[in-house]
Amino acid sequence: MSDWKDICSARKSAQLASIPQEWIIQLPPETRTNVLDIPKDCGLLTTRELQITETTDVGILLRKLHSSEWSSEEVTIAFCKRSIIAQQLTNCLTEIFIERALQRARELDDTLKRTGKIVGPLHGLPISLKDQFAMKGLETIMGYVAWIGKRAESDCVLVEILYECGAVPFVRTNVPQALMWWETYNHVFGRTTNPYNRKLTSGGSSGGEAALIAMKGSPLGVGTDIGGSLRVPSSFCNLYALRPSYERLPYYGVVNPQEGQESISSVLGPMSNSMSGVKIFTKAIIDAKPWTKDPLALRKEWSEKEYCLSEHGGGKSLCFGMLWDNGISRPHPPLQRAMKITKAALEAAGHKVIDWEPHRLVEIYGNAEKIFCSDDDHDRRSQCELSGEPVIRMMSPIDDMQGHTMGESFSRSLVDKVGHRSAYDLWQLHKEKRELRKSHLEHWKKTSERTGTGRPVDAIISPTIAYTAAPHGLNTSASFYSAFSNALDLTACSFPVTFVDGELDVPQPPHPFRNHEDEAIFKLYSPDVFAGGPVGLQLIGGSQEEEAVISMAEIVDAALKVYSA
Amino acid sequence: MSDWKDICSARKSAQLASIPQEWIIQLPPETRTNVLDIPKDCGLLTTRELQITETTDVGILLRKLHSSEWSSEEVTIAFCKRSIIAQQLTNCLTEIFIERALQRARELDDTLKRTGKIVGPLHGLPISLKDQFAMKGLETIMGYVAWIGKRAESDCVLVEILYECGAVPFVRTNVPQALMWWETYNHVFGRTTNPYNRKLTSGGSSGGEAALIAMKGSPLGVGTDIGGSLRVPSSFCNLYALRPSYERLPYYGVVNPQEGQESISSVLGPMSNSMSGVKIFTKAIIDAKPWTKDPLALRKEWSEKEYCLSEHGGGKSLCFGMLWDNGISRPHPPLQRAMKITKAALEAAGHKVIDWEPHRLVEIYGNAEKIFCSDDDHDRRSQCELSGEPVIRMMSPIDDMQGHTMGESFSRSLVDKVGHRSAYDLWQLHKEKRELRKSHLEHWKKTSERTGTGRPVDAIISPTIAYTAAPHGLNTSASFYSAFSNALDLTACSFPVTFVDGELDVPQPPHPFRNHEDEAIFKLYSPDVFAGGPVGLQLIGGSQEEEAVISMAEIVDAALKVYSA
Repeated sequence: MSDWKDICSARKSAQLASIPQEWIIQLPPETRTNVLDIPKDCGLLTTRELQITETTDVGILLRKLHSSEWSSEEVTIAFCKRSIIAQQLTNCLTEIFIERALQRARELDDTLKRTGKIVGPLHGLPISLKDQFAMKGLETIMGYVAWIGKRAESDCVLVEILYECGAVPFVRTNVPQALMWWETYNHVFGRTTNPYNRKLTSGGSSGGEAALIAMKGSPLGVGTDIGGSLRVPSSFCNLYALRPSYERLPYYGVVNPQEGQESISSVLGPMSNSMSGVKIFTKAIIDAKPWTKDPLALRKEWSEKEYCLSEHGGGKSLCFGMLWDNGISRPHPPLQRAMKITKAALEAAGHKVIDWEPHRLVEIYGNAEKIFCSDDDHDRRSQCELSGEPVIRMMSPIDDMQGHTMGESFSRSLVDKVGHRSAYDLWQLHKEKRELRKSHLEHWKKTSERTGTGRPVDAIISPTIAYTAAPHGLNTSASFYSAFSNALDLTACSFPVTFVDGELDVPQPPHPFRNHEDEAIFKLYSPDVFAGGPVGLQLIGGSQEEEAVISMAEIVDAALKVYSA
Repeated sequence: MSDWKDICSARKSAQLASIPQEWIIQLPPETRTNVLDIPKDCGLLTTRELQITETTDVGILLRKLHSSEWSSEEVTIAFCKRSIIAQQLTNCLTEIFIERALQRARELDDTLKRTGKIVGPLHGLPISLKDQFAMKGLETIMGYVAWIGKRAESDCVLVEILYECGAVPFVRTNVPQALMWWETYNHVFGRTTNPYNRKLTSGGSSGGEAALIAMKGSPLGVGTDIGGSLRVPSSFCNLYALRPSYERLPYYGVVNPQEGQESISSVLGPMSNSMSGVKIFTKAIIDAKPWTKDPLALRKEWSEKEYCLSEHGGGKSLCFGMLWDNGISRPHPPLQRAMKITKAALEAAGHKVIDWEPHRLVEIYGNAEKIFCSDDDHDRRSQCELSGEPVIRMMSPIDDMQGHTMGESFSRSLVDKVGHRSAYDLWQLHKEKRELRKSHLEHWKKTSERTGTGRPVDAIISPTIAYTAAPHGLNTSASFYSAFSNALDLTACSFPVTFVDGELDVPQPPHPFRNHEDEAIFKLYSPDVFAGGPVGLQLIGGSQEEEAVISMAEIVDAALKVYSA
């Protein structure tokens, strides 16, 4: 057996070979950290291709595709080219299958020309996929050396539905080894960087998607989220993303670490430069009745009534609860400013914002962390042992043995016993979790005493993680701001607010630290290092409240746009 | 600490003391096995009380209550009295709280008189509850000696909603120790018998409910089902029952064995003498938005569209798949006849019935059984150890150490390793289960080639267990006909068809036995012993298809009534 490093090099060379030679651009110097404008400047894209790829509203893109103003072939070529530019600048891709995509696009164009009818609501639209969504004949490597060469025998249900909807999958995107990380690095494809500042991470685990979409190399991507993996990279890269509830969107056939762990299920969701992308994707997939293909998918149709906020007073005077600080790790100054902006924007739009009081969060995280550790890392270790590659314990680019390790994180300190847990012990965690969910629901309902609307708080607004895009290898949080909605199965939608501003976002004096991570996060902040990075937040609603959460996120987004105009 | 037997006697005496002395009837001789007519003959019920309790259509009962033709107080008194008669004849009750119920009924009457408005859709209706549904201040004993004296601090969510809907809970009903049994016997309250023939079991684990409702001692009861516990007793006692999907109806706060086992969740559902009871209960609970109280309950409104069979061609020409024999245990002759009657009735009503081919059922049962055994019986053993009562291993009334034991059943033989399973191993079972569910879904969809409707089979019809009400202690099946819908989370509704007829249901010649249980079940049948017992079947639909399954069960029920008229 060859050395795992050789296998990685070969795979990386094969990836490079799958790029058309004529799309190789002259790279900017490494000192050029913000690479967002390079697609415009590098000369590879035509004016029309730039016009296509700069159309960030997915609704508009689809209208032009469906009216045949733009063919799927030209739209697909435009995004393929731009994705290859993104790849060369941020290393965001894994599998590249341009020929397959173009053939598909031409077939769709042909059908539309022939029949006058679109194949489905996503007709002609290129869509990128995180390296978990199995596609027939392609490898799904998910950051494991051992999975190189493992080709899927069939499409996962999501891909099947995307094809039925008329979409054009064209690339897959990078992830961290085993996915559980807020950065994107693995031994096979290496590290993905943030196009806003390549010295910073694009986040994780859907970090390849985030970098790609931020570069406008894809109009719509699909990621997954078990603790924040859709929302954290979206916040780091100025994107919108939806974390739906367990099994609202079809996960069958998606490869995943700890497969079969169903206590806190990973979910898939859309990432896009616009809320329209988030809504169109979610509605299209649900309208395709995923429960007819995925036996675990919820039989719950898209509800226009819920989207019209029937349970939220029709959306006229909403009341949001702002989670300024979860009492575990204090958000960095840019996030505090983003929350103030959002509050002011919502108030200016006639809504109300009250303080959200965090409720039993340490217990909730402790419970979740114990569930995640129930196999004592057996799943990841065994996959690494297959090839001999080391388990990645930290992601510092300087030295694989230095810096912060996840194993020492605050969240791990919440796990009392490390080691294999029995099924019976797992059941006890389920009991505890059920009680915590009930307690949190009652806490939420009690806010009706303070909202003035007669309803409980319509949604919570909070950071997705305590900081913005951080330097590679320095991530230090278990994202207590995101994982709580996974543990409680609350629907959440992340949205961009502003950018780190060195002058406005001055460091604060130290506060009494609640734990070593709180201190480490505080010390991490420096305006010089973080400046220019996107600052995003998330809106959190109830379980299976996808329609209302999308609708409320649209309201918040519109309010922010009016306010900052 | 007193001996557990003394504690049981004391609790049983307290139960007796909770019965009004004037409601004690003269008992018939033990040789009178069918006791259904005794409420009419014993003289305790007035003509009006007989008229009330003989009203088996819950819709009619509610109309009379809501129009004030009958007061809730008189209806409650009538059912209380009749439930006490049922108790004396079949030993079906655990907790009896007549005073609480009557006070509640009087309050409801008062509100209706004062405001002219009903409190909710179940206004004034007495409802009985299996001894799992925690009620503030009452014990929930669930067949464990150790749980005597354990009083609930709050109502479970279902009871909370029942009160909001205007219902009048009045008694709770008997269960087998630890629930996992097709009979109803425990050391505290003893054995429940079948009112159609007291030598036979009323089934389990919702066997107290079944005997009570069959006696018309309650118009509507609530049971639970993790492997057939609603459907088997309903079939044994000539009732209708719905097993909804996981979390469609609110389970929060219901006590349960193996709490926290969420791989195959126990669900609650209605039992009644009419389909109207099944529908009214299900719709009322869903309309109360259980997800606002139970964080795990599905946010899925009652869908009239699905009830109108929008996905089943409007219900005009349905195609059913008949599961004549699951290949594991052959159904007794009365069940074979019931299936033939149902097929003929459906065909006469313009529907189609094709053969259902069982699909990977042994694998499905093996997977389920391994999940259920993951704690190596620790949960039950530990609860028994608290009081010193023995774990009940068989239910023969003759000798606690003889006869068939569950531990030797065929289903246990599917479990390769007995002993505590690790969480990681449980995850592997989840993976396997997910693949089995997908495989079964595809198998189902493939039937569209044979139905002639353009759709897959609209529902499966099958026995709920391979035999009808059997003599006490002789149950020998793990109910392979029911547990498969629990494992795959398929909605199912059981309904009565006919009665065992000694002349029509003659024993068959032996067939090649597939396993020792198949043989034991074959040998169990004797027309003399089983004659007169009810024969029921079930209709099985998709996951979260409660509305359509109720609607189709109504169609089958109507067809059977026309056919046998």
